Amino acid sequence: MIIIGEKINTSLKAIRPAVENKDAAQVQDVAIKQAEAGAHYIDVNCGTFPYREPELLEWLVKTVQEVTDLPLCIDSPNPVALEAALKAYKGPKPLINSVTAEKERFESIFPLVTEYNTSIIALCMDDSGMPETADQRLKIADWLINTMTKKGVDISDIYIDPMVRPVSTGTHYGTVALETIRRVMNDYPGIHTTCGLSNISFGLPARKIINQTFLISAIAAGLDSAILNPLDKMIMSFVYSAELLMGKDEFCMNYLAAFREGRLEV
Amino acid sequence: MIIIGEKINTSLKAIRPAVENKDAAQVQDVAIKQAEAGAHYIDVNCGTFPYREPELLEWLVKTVQEVTDLPLCIDSPNPVALEAALKAYKGPKPLINSVTAEKERFESIFPLVTEYNTSIIALCMDDSGMPETADQRLKIADWLINTMTKKGVDISDIYIDPMVRPVSTGTHYGTVALETIRRVMNDYPGIHTTCGLSNISFGLPARKIINQTFLISAIAAGLDSAILNPLDKMIMSFVYSAELLMGKDEFCMNYLAAFREGRLEV
Repeated sequence: MIIIGEKINTSLKAIRPAVENKDAAQVQDVAIKQAEAGAHYIDVNCGTFPYREPELLEWLVKTVQEVTDLPLCIDSPNPVALEAALKAYKGPKPLINSVTAEKERFESIFPLVTEYNTSIIALCMDDSGMPETADQRLKIADWLINTMTKKGVDISDIYIDPMVRPVSTGTHYGTVALETIRRVMNDYPGIHTTCGLSNISFGLPARKIINQTFLISAIAAGLDSAILNPLDKMIMSFVYSAELLMGKDEFCMNYLAAFREGRLEV
Repeated sequence: MIIIGEKINTSLKAIRPAVENKDAAQVQDVAIKQAEAGAHYIDVNCGTFPYREPELLEWLVKTVQEVTDLPLCIDSPNPVALEAALKAYKGPKPLINSVTAEKERFESIFPLVTEYNTSIIALCMDDSGMPETADQRLKIADWLINTMTKKGVDISDIYIDPMVRPVSTGTHYGTVALETIRRVMNDYPGIHTTCGLSNISFGLPARKIINQTFLISAIAAGLDSAILNPLDKMIMSFVYSAELLMGKDEFCMNYLAAFREGRLEV
């Protein structure tokens, strides 16, 4: 399971002032803690400062890279901010979060993937709006995958996000997301799937329960990456146990190590 | 989701002396609490008293039926104990737990199903021992289902138990159980699947995490019944959220009601 640590995001109250005031130590502390908790990528997002995004995203990249060798997930829909960040970026192949099949967004962001040799999160959305069914998502995913691999992107650098919609707005959206994950993983060997956990529970109470349940169901459907809070011990415990149950943990070694090292919520 | 409340079982320290001493009030209290927590069946099991099983199982049936109108799940491999219990039983169609495809067990227990008009839990096991693969389980399930329906049992009265084996003894046993559930639910419309949650985690630490993960994954695979502790608020919360995500909770009504009534672990 490829864990993308989501904690450096200015939509989170705890991080917003640190980024606004360029408090490097505080941002670096959150990066280090996520790395220690098992993150494979550190996401950086300063989208709540649209007018300063290029400057702040570049600063975030430099600041976080001072304290970790992990690759970053550079999170913005703004190609100018992404390019500023990528120019400052050094080290292992980063992940851009994200492109869609919307014409303008695809044409402005995709060239960065090939120019800077990055991996890419691709959302199942196009100019016809939010897709309703799994079939529509698969059609969009197919276009994204074919278009990008034809331009030289390796399939293992593509992370398809099923575009999760809240079950409060349609009770079928849970199975739609899970079916999309299952079919993408089945139809495109070598690809990754990823998503956040909180959209699914939007508008409902006790969201944590729904988010945990969704993560486990999605891993059971084949999901092999997630954008989550690695400092949430319960969520990470479910990552370990779900991988164990899906037969992806030989001799239960990862689960047992997590237990021994006190990383399970018991 | 059909919940079979597992708390009246003499292998549990809390209930053992109550049954041994025929303390009706204590047993009835556990029955009432499980009913209030959302159980659809109350399981009764006194298998740790093999020499008194017919007498005690009959007593359990009478004692529990004094305080609840819920159907019981009469839990024993002993046909003499089962028949004593069934003779004393009144009310809605009970569930026998369980038959297998082992020749002797099937021949001694199955006649009770038709004679007393019960539902039946059927384990995927036969005289060749514990099955290894999902294919072997499906073959046994097919024999059980065909044999029983040919003798007049309605398919909706059959609960197939995939015979869960611990992942600590083979890391493939998680996916084997889930695949068995998925295929049985897919191949035999109208059937039920059920199982306990604890076998899967046998021999591992932090078992609760694995059991919760297994329940959610199994519901995602189609499981529509489980033998569990309905007084465990966390487990019941995951039942509600998993049904929600599987599109089985129109307008999120059950989930929202559970939240309002304080039945979710938040």
